[in-house]
Amino acid sequence: MTRGRFIVFDGVEGSGKSTQLPLVADWIATTRAAPLVTREPGGTPLAEQMRSLCLQDHQEELPKTAELLMMFAARSVHLNNRILPALAAGQWVLCDRFVDASYAYQGAGQGLQGSDIAQLETLVVGPHQPDCVFIFDLPIAMLMERVKSRGQADRFDRADAEFHKRVRATYLERAQQQPMRYVVIDASASIQTITRTICKELEARFAG
Amino acid sequence: MTRGRFIVFDGVEGSGKSTQLPLVADWIATTRAAPLVTREPGGTPLAEQMRSLCLQDHQEELPKTAELLMMFAARSVHLNNRILPALAAGQWVLCDRFVDASYAYQGAGQGLQGSDIAQLETLVVGPHQPDCVFIFDLPIAMLMERVKSRGQADRFDRADAEFHKRVRATYLERAQQQPMRYVVIDASASIQTITRTICKELEARFAG
Repeated sequence: MTRGRFIVFDGVEGSGKSTQLPLVADWIATTRAAPLVTREPGGTPLAEQMRSLCLQDHQEELPKTAELLMMFAARSVHLNNRILPALAAGQWVLCDRFVDASYAYQGAGQGLQGSDIAQLETLVVGPHQPDCVFIFDLPIAMLMERVKSRGQADRFDRADAEFHKRVRATYLERAQQQPMRYVVIDASASIQTITRTICKELEARFAG
Repeated sequence: MTRGRFIVFDGVEGSGKSTQLPLVADWIATTRAAPLVTREPGGTPLAEQMRSLCLQDHQEELPKTAELLMMFAARSVHLNNRILPALAAGQWVLCDRFVDASYAYQGAGQGLQGSDIAQLETLVVGPHQPDCVFIFDLPIAMLMERVKSRGQADRFDRADAEFHKRVRATYLERAQQQPMRYVVIDASASIQTITRTICKELEARFAG
């Protein structure tokens, strides 16, 4: 049994990642078994419970460090109980957000140390790194427009332009540091163009 | 305002820690403001929710690493939202279990790396170490007898004698490594004797 491929879609908000996931999944399904499409934070019932604990309004403050630990606890559950078993069974996995989101949102966005996040990444993910990470990128003006037009009330959407600038810069930096594993996607392109770009890239990397 | 004292009762199961907490709290209250008596894991509503997520029976496995991260997330909440504000207000804090329990139960008991626990300790506790830790110790035969007679169904109680031996050894080792901050209590003594020993120790350390 050949191990499946672990593919992550990550990047700034409003960049269309979640729109692309089912489209790319459909394309994969034309040539092999349908992939597992999943998302972070969450991805299993237990990990979803951890996610809810983080996102709900509390009567008390959730320290940033506690939030970071909860995110990685949920990631550990998701990876061990859902992603790794699928990969071991030969299935491809398309995951909406993964470790990069922690560096971008908890790290650059909220000011937690990248070195602390790296330690947690080693502890939780270890050798189970994604085979390929697509970073969906948008120029900052377009990003802010999309964030505003979504009008969601969750905690990240309330944050300001500076926050989103730092988040975006972190995604791009990480992509530059590991160009073999990362692909930056121009998310201002049309939906069809983006799907085509991603599928071409997957074909080139993992054909056969 | 003088900062309060942060005092931890920790040690093997069935060693009478929880019996001693209110007795020592009463003694402290005779000479100063009543202390905050609290416990881990838990200690605030949010931390209790994290604790419940760890202890409940799941339809899926809770990876050991995820459990460790949840414990430290709950500890971060407890420390920031309850313990540190009390200490800052000059109140003494008596806490049933703290970081040592992670080294003993998740580390020695369940086989997680002490170095990983130490990293989490640095991240979450940092400089906010307890002023004094009482380690309640029992000879292994007496410990096993008490564990069995409690007949609780939680996950640690189901574990075997080897588990409890490793847990006990870790507590003793940590107490030996930091003799200035740790006091080993012979928990086979009478309730009155133990209370008297602890109160004498506190008086000697923190009089005035």
